[in-house]
Amino acid sequence: MSAIQRNIEASSARYSASFTHGSLALPPAKKYLVLTCMDARIDPAQAFGIELGDAHVIRNAGASAQDALRSIVISQQLLGTNEIALVKHTGCGMLTFKNEDAYELVREKLGQEAVEELCQANLDFLPFPDLEKAVEADVEFLKRSNLVPNSVLISGWVYEVETGKTRRVV
Amino acid sequence: MSAIQRNIEASSARYSASFTHGSLALPPAKKYLVLTCMDARIDPAQAFGIELGDAHVIRNAGASAQDALRSIVISQQLLGTNEIALVKHTGCGMLTFKNEDAYELVREKLGQEAVEELCQANLDFLPFPDLEKAVEADVEFLKRSNLVPNSVLISGWVYEVETGKTRRVV
Repeated sequence: MSAIQRNIEASSARYSASFTHGSLALPPAKKYLVLTCMDARIDPAQAFGIELGDAHVIRNAGASAQDALRSIVISQQLLGTNEIALVKHTGCGMLTFKNEDAYELVREKLGQEAVEELCQANLDFLPFPDLEKAVEADVEFLKRSNLVPNSVLISGWVYEVETGKTRRVV
Repeated sequence: MSAIQRNIEASSARYSASFTHGSLALPPAKKYLVLTCMDARIDPAQAFGIELGDAHVIRNAGASAQDALRSIVISQQLLGTNEIALVKHTGCGMLTFKNEDAYELVREKLGQEAVEELCQANLDFLPFPDLEKAVEADVEFLKRSNLVPNSVLISGWVYEVETGKTRRVV
């Protein structure tokens, strides 16, 4: 067993020993979803004040709305959420490369078969060169999508990894 | 401003007031990533023992490895992670429907244009009928993918929303 796996087992033993939330319902109690980045420096529950059971939390590289669309439709249509807070962050890795750089890196490190798998999946890494514009663009993408009803409230934010602050953009 | 938006602002003010992690590096310190579900009843940091800065956390509907592939490649190839813990959970919404049910629901609630957007995106909702088999299948999917090097350690787990326990499957 790896150190990471041992840590999960030990943390689970501690967490479950004092666990008192075993009867929470499946649908989020406060009917909202937070979409943020997978970045290791973000703890959404603490930074954004999410109590257990209250909200769906979707995380991917860059907090991409396009990449999250499947999960967003399920959250809204099957589980009744009606508000989205989209939070990107300062210092995001997605600001540091372009699609062609990532394809070249995959070719170098993983070989031609891996590049072909990328091409077959038509995989766009979805990097962005400007943080605030990317927040605006993703909120706009969600507002324009036929898959997100107009009744859904959508806000866009930036989390600052340097200060721990979350500020509204749109 | 909505109650959710007010809560984010108030939580941010509290969190940032005692924030001391402003100089963490971009790459995850412990070089691993956790892939889990967006479910509101999961707090990955607490349940799986993830310290701020240590791991990427990817979350989507059902903890789908296929859906997470873009983020996983970025995490590994650009930010150096080399271990994956994939955690699905009991009581998952993805156990409760089939793709055709979701398409029908979208047609009823959002109309034909929305269904056409689903079809254009070739969107598979990726539900699964058996929890433990889905963990095994997703771990297998990652092990077989040319986009995930053989050197990456991959484990599969189930989090029990009733008990707060996380148990190893594969």
